[in-house]
Amino acid sequence: MEYYGADISNLIEELSSLPGIGSKSAQRLAFHIINMPQEQVDSLSNAITSAKKNARYCKCCLNLTDREICPICEDEGRDHRQIMVVENPRDLAAYEKTGKYEGVYHVLHGAISPMLGIGPGDIRLKELMVRLEGDVDEVIIATNSSLEGETTAMYISKLIKPTGIKVTRIASGVPVGGDLEYIDEVTLLRALEGRTEL
Amino acid sequence: MEYYGADISNLIEELSSLPGIGSKSAQRLAFHIINMPQEQVDSLSNAITSAKKNARYCKCCLNLTDREICPICEDEGRDHRQIMVVENPRDLAAYEKTGKYEGVYHVLHGAISPMLGIGPGDIRLKELMVRLEGDVDEVIIATNSSLEGETTAMYISKLIKPTGIKVTRIASGVPVGGDLEYIDEVTLLRALEGRTEL
Repeated sequence: MEYYGADISNLIEELSSLPGIGSKSAQRLAFHIINMPQEQVDSLSNAITSAKKNARYCKCCLNLTDREICPICEDEGRDHRQIMVVENPRDLAAYEKTGKYEGVYHVLHGAISPMLGIGPGDIRLKELMVRLEGDVDEVIIATNSSLEGETTAMYISKLIKPTGIKVTRIASGVPVGGDLEYIDEVTLLRALEGRTEL
Repeated sequence: MEYYGADISNLIEELSSLPGIGSKSAQRLAFHIINMPQEQVDSLSNAITSAKKNARYCKCCLNLTDREICPICEDEGRDHRQIMVVENPRDLAAYEKTGKYEGVYHVLHGAISPMLGIGPGDIRLKELMVRLEGDVDEVIIATNSSLEGETTAMYISKLIKPTGIKVTRIASGVPVGGDLEYIDEVTLLRALEGRTEL
């Protein structure tokens, strides 16, 4: 991109190194940024700097946050006796968007994957076990419905069972609005196995 | 996004205000940025600031650049007697990527559009006419193959004809690798009209 000069080429390169941004989008974004009013450019650049500076994991649930304890763990209106275990902060965000879950979370930051050499010691399980020494009624395992997510769910449930705490797993099945015709066999079988009486 | 705290939510919001970045990509990008090494974050933030600070239009061809004269106009190895007229710097970049065009450019920064109230006075035509007072052999009109692009091409060609300078238009037709079956009728007719002898 030598035809624009160093500063602009550099911005395009920086942007295209971000995930999901190809060289064409990077160019479009760079031109957009250059055409934004100065104060918007400053606020974008400052947002990047301060999010990086202040980001850390919540001391309690390991959610990504900019405080010692994240807003969810700090919320006394939520049920701290119900812990939902998720693989990463984006999964937490997905459940928060439903607006219906009143418990708290625990973020594993990964899933057990023998293929990738990620064992139980590589995800934040120890921190979960420490939390279970307190007053907890139920652990809801909401790892992904992938091979890794299922392996992790099985492992955690075996680990927690001896403590006597209730362990549940979110349901697998046909997504709401899903057309059976387009859904894979494994999901269809799961939906059949998990059928409930009407 | 109150579950992450102010700094992280703010970064997600800033990113999702950019074109083509929805709320999910913004979240993914924000997490990626937070996990980048500090020096990469700094270089991204600096790239944004300095591209904005130094961006301007080339005094000669109006390409977006960070210098007074853009690297293309400064290049003495290129043919300055051949000027390709494009609508915007992204179109210039597209032709530069072919690596085969040896002439220079003129960026109009728009196209004539009676629908949007954009007249010949609203694009950078005056600057083109001034350049044609120098030594120019050919003006290649490479505006888009849209209604606006064609209107602009017609207008420019009428404007230049009296000067005696050769005016050409890039060809319309079936894209290379294109399957006739999936190509619109207008393009097919253009390809027929523009057929060449073998």
